Amino acid sequence: MKRILDAIQSPSDLKKLKPFQLGKLCQEIREELLEKVSQTGGHLASNLGIVELTVALHYVLNCPKDQIVWDVGHQAYIHKMLTGRRNQMDTLRKFQGMSGFPKRSESEYDAFGVGHSSTAISAALGMAIARDLRGENYHVVAVVGDGAMTGGMSFEGLSHAAHEKRNLLVILNDNAMSISPNVGALSSYFNRLRSNPKYHHTKDKVSEFLQRIPGIGSVLESGVRSMKEAIRSIALKGGTLFEGLGWTYLGPVDGHDLNKLMVVLKNSIQLEGPVLIHVITQKGKGYRPAEKKPDQFHGVGAFDIKTGKSLSSPQRSYTDIFSDFMLQQGRENPNIVAITAAMAGGTGLKPFAKKYPKQFFDVGICEQHAVTLAAGMACKGLHPVVCIYSTFLQRAFDQIIHDVALQNLPILFAIDRAGLVGDDGATHQGVFDLSMLRDIPHLKIYCPTNGQELRETLEQAIQISGPVVVRYPRGAARQPWGSEDVTLLLDHGFHAEKAQCVKEGEKIAFLGTGRGYELAKETCRLWKKQRKDGALWKFISVKPLDQEALLQVTKTCRYLVTVEDAALIGGFGSAVLESLSDAGVAVQVLRIGIPDQFVEQGKVEQLWDFLHMTPERIVEKIWQKWPELEPEMNHS
Amino acid sequence: MKRILDAIQSPSDLKKLKPFQLGKLCQEIREELLEKVSQTGGHLASNLGIVELTVALHYVLNCPKDQIVWDVGHQAYIHKMLTGRRNQMDTLRKFQGMSGFPKRSESEYDAFGVGHSSTAISAALGMAIARDLRGENYHVVAVVGDGAMTGGMSFEGLSHAAHEKRNLLVILNDNAMSISPNVGALSSYFNRLRSNPKYHHTKDKVSEFLQRIPGIGSVLESGVRSMKEAIRSIALKGGTLFEGLGWTYLGPVDGHDLNKLMVVLKNSIQLEGPVLIHVITQKGKGYRPAEKKPDQFHGVGAFDIKTGKSLSSPQRSYTDIFSDFMLQQGRENPNIVAITAAMAGGTGLKPFAKKYPKQFFDVGICEQHAVTLAAGMACKGLHPVVCIYSTFLQRAFDQIIHDVALQNLPILFAIDRAGLVGDDGATHQGVFDLSMLRDIPHLKIYCPTNGQELRETLEQAIQISGPVVVRYPRGAARQPWGSEDVTLLLDHGFHAEKAQCVKEGEKIAFLGTGRGYELAKETCRLWKKQRKDGALWKFISVKPLDQEALLQVTKTCRYLVTVEDAALIGGFGSAVLESLSDAGVAVQVLRIGIPDQFVEQGKVEQLWDFLHMTPERIVEKIWQKWPELEPEMNHS
Repeated sequence: MKRILDAIQSPSDLKKLKPFQLGKLCQEIREELLEKVSQTGGHLASNLGIVELTVALHYVLNCPKDQIVWDVGHQAYIHKMLTGRRNQMDTLRKFQGMSGFPKRSESEYDAFGVGHSSTAISAALGMAIARDLRGENYHVVAVVGDGAMTGGMSFEGLSHAAHEKRNLLVILNDNAMSISPNVGALSSYFNRLRSNPKYHHTKDKVSEFLQRIPGIGSVLESGVRSMKEAIRSIALKGGTLFEGLGWTYLGPVDGHDLNKLMVVLKNSIQLEGPVLIHVITQKGKGYRPAEKKPDQFHGVGAFDIKTGKSLSSPQRSYTDIFSDFMLQQGRENPNIVAITAAMAGGTGLKPFAKKYPKQFFDVGICEQHAVTLAAGMACKGLHPVVCIYSTFLQRAFDQIIHDVALQNLPILFAIDRAGLVGDDGATHQGVFDLSMLRDIPHLKIYCPTNGQELRETLEQAIQISGPVVVRYPRGAARQPWGSEDVTLLLDHGFHAEKAQCVKEGEKIAFLGTGRGYELAKETCRLWKKQRKDGALWKFISVKPLDQEALLQVTKTCRYLVTVEDAALIGGFGSAVLESLSDAGVAVQVLRIGIPDQFVEQGKVEQLWDFLHMTPERIVEKIWQKWPELEPEMNHS
Repeated sequence: MKRILDAIQSPSDLKKLKPFQLGKLCQEIREELLEKVSQTGGHLASNLGIVELTVALHYVLNCPKDQIVWDVGHQAYIHKMLTGRRNQMDTLRKFQGMSGFPKRSESEYDAFGVGHSSTAISAALGMAIARDLRGENYHVVAVVGDGAMTGGMSFEGLSHAAHEKRNLLVILNDNAMSISPNVGALSSYFNRLRSNPKYHHTKDKVSEFLQRIPGIGSVLESGVRSMKEAIRSIALKGGTLFEGLGWTYLGPVDGHDLNKLMVVLKNSIQLEGPVLIHVITQKGKGYRPAEKKPDQFHGVGAFDIKTGKSLSSPQRSYTDIFSDFMLQQGRENPNIVAITAAMAGGTGLKPFAKKYPKQFFDVGICEQHAVTLAAGMACKGLHPVVCIYSTFLQRAFDQIIHDVALQNLPILFAIDRAGLVGDDGATHQGVFDLSMLRDIPHLKIYCPTNGQELRETLEQAIQISGPVVVRYPRGAARQPWGSEDVTLLLDHGFHAEKAQCVKEGEKIAFLGTGRGYELAKETCRLWKKQRKDGALWKFISVKPLDQEALLQVTKTCRYLVTVEDAALIGGFGSAVLESLSDAGVAVQVLRIGIPDQFVEQGKVEQLWDFLHMTPERIVEKIWQKWPELEPEMNHS
């Protein structure tokens, strides 16, 4: 059977279709999307929910002249399929393939690069201002989820846009779900709006009715200045939040009713000033397993379409270990509270939330608020554990300095997804945290290197009466069992701030922290195979750095190789350089880590390979940097 | 004449007063405040505006058991006077004196340390939650200015607090002025509220009237679900923004009418759930010059009370030089736009704003939005100059990475108040910027060392088609004229990324950047006096770092001293260590800069002295670290 989708190479092809063909197109898109994402993995539920809206947008707008800014952007797969990238869907989120997010360098249809939440209104307003100042003429549309709307930055954008009065369209894509079910008052507010789908009729009826009441006009004129506005308030109810700021509010509109969507879109882009259309969509629409459990189909790996079941077997992750730790804390300490910013599932806090609901706080996509909320709690006798992904913690840098560290408050930051995260690409790599955090006074930073150490480190960190960061990567926890480090760990007792000599050696020492330790160990092994011996050291604590241990290393080893899963500039290796310099010890250091570039998507192993972060490449670098260390066999 | 104020050592003394005495007390407070701040300098206008509110709060509340969180906190002088610190007013903002902001370590009455904007609701909510979880019983009050309310973080707090439904009181201190006059839709919104001072009467009248209309109840029940809510909407008009979120909104209340304030406060702390009182105050109230020009009396130096004129003679500052640069840019390039976050005056953008109003954007206290707005503009052909103080740029770290650098957009960041700022203390020191920014790919960072260089650096930076930071300190611009660096500057041409050898020397070299250069130069001079010769190098560019020059230095000098006005961890000195390590050059380095601690208030010179950042102390450190460099005369 011939498929309409096959004829769509660009939005201009879409525009050639008759409106009645669009329904079928949407069905084809859903089927293909499901088929592709079940193989590649990716963000499924949000894309299933936005099929009609995306088709309607490209049918009505004139892209790439018109600008669509997708907030967060994981819901832009349909947009990509309709803008010439359908044949790249197989490479979605794969190494050197198509990004899972809009990206300016990927397509002229991607107006703005995104990944983090709540940036779209600000960026779109910037574009609208640029258009007006340069005397150009195009539409700017921001598509913002209800979860992203809870972020304070969205409010800043809404407020400023209303003040600017530029022509700008915001589509509130309201699926009652960010990643976890939305929390907060804005969410309740949207619920109230949603509960009134007959809004337009109501508005007319009330207005009509009031006009027919004899004398009401005059009384209200004297009583309240702007009765017209007040009548709208009655009808719009909650819509006044946006109208109060100065936006024209339209909706709610059924986001799966193509005809209504297109009528509203066509009309609204003709309106002057900032307009917000409130569109109601269903996350996972059209695929029963995703409709039923949309949060489980938010970001998925490959899965079986029929059953909806994942094709990969779950391994015990660092997140699981943190999750168990929190359950134990809940049992033992009534003052422990857990805070997440819309990531209850991803951070492993759901079991804690279920068991200790009064001690659990999901604040929505509000990292700034999350951190300062914790500071307030810590002032009054609670011990908060703030769990935020490394990349999103960047949003709360100022709050960590100003509200937490400066007041030296007891808060444990559990930083998941540290280091390279893989498929999500450049916007999500957790590589800037060490540089960002290391300069903050009072803050301790621990990077355990395996699952057992994560648990031990968390146990120690929660005892500390000041701020501590425990940083761990995404995915399966490395097992210490059977490897040479576990014995020393058990023999010598464990203290996160004491560096451990895992293996004695001479001349050269490999120093690893966090996930970098495994690479340091493998490199040390390879080095030994090359008929040389080297020492292996493990540094869990990046701050304070164990200077005593470092000086001990340099007694026998004048060549140090530091290995970390973080930006080289300002990271662990730099901490080692600073410490050596302060001690006046002049030894040679080779720093291995993330170089000064943004790292795109791929499996973590592929990315490490791409960045020459493999034992083989590191050994090559050592010989290149220090030819005097080259093994004798090469000279023979 | 006996003064009531003399009897007030703590809020409990205040409570002994009869209500009729409070008016006189307020007058005495105003007089003393004016007298003290005219001598010490400080934040005047905001404190004059909040006298009655502060007295009312401490009369009604029971502090320190009850918690008052002051947003920003520069309006807490009266609070300090009433809580046992009146006799410290002479030391306000002075070295080792009383802080200009609430500080937990200073007094048990300071519930939360502040300085940056929009944190109070989050912190107060955290306290309210802690109170409830621990089964304790006290009131928590956040006092938030209308400017601080525009920051997205306040909205995050409002939204979450409504969801939590805890007992929490927010006082919106609305003086229609953050530092510059407020901008944005929220500000217009407050204006509409203010325009309706008879709110309470109106509400009753409308409600009464509507109840008397025959049949209205039934019709509205069928037309709109919650008519009760709708009637409140009519009466409250704009108040629905807060009510829409779930807050009980009371106001507006005249913030200089003590009796009304106390009635409203007493009643509102009895209410269940989150309550917002909208209080209208006048910035500068009671002092004519400050009433007339409140923004000029926001933060002041010592001044003459009679005339209101400053006692210090203005010197040409780095800010002035930036201001002139922007005027020239406005003339030459229609695509240049300037963005500030509520600091039009402080950043020197007022002349530009006046002359090129269409190219000027004050977005309110919204640093996150400011940066992403600029990114949107840059995508569509404008060249934004974002001017934010160093300490406030911490708020936009994620946006600089995610929205600007990742997309490599042409944006010039003019970072004023870099390095130690002095009187404002630990919350405002601009010392974390180099560590924070240096790890961001694509971003260039320039730190000119004098006024002429700032101008030249800005001229070069605006030509660059990617993101650039130009960082400069508060206060008088250092003059290059007559110093040895100017000749070389003119002879060799100027390029910000080329390090300059200002003076040849041997064995030891002094490397300075930004304001640190002056200290490097003075230290080099002192060193020469000690019968030794040293080289002097100037590094304007911290990133990229001129590695070629660095290697040239090390040819003759095996001892390097780096000097910077930024955090030592991850700063310029660390960049030098990284560069030397990468090049495999083993020389000794002594890094001078801000150590790993928060730096309190004081004159910048006092703070440098306190931190041992003086030529004499640096020379001592050199001898201590490298005894082999000690001059021969000492051995004789």
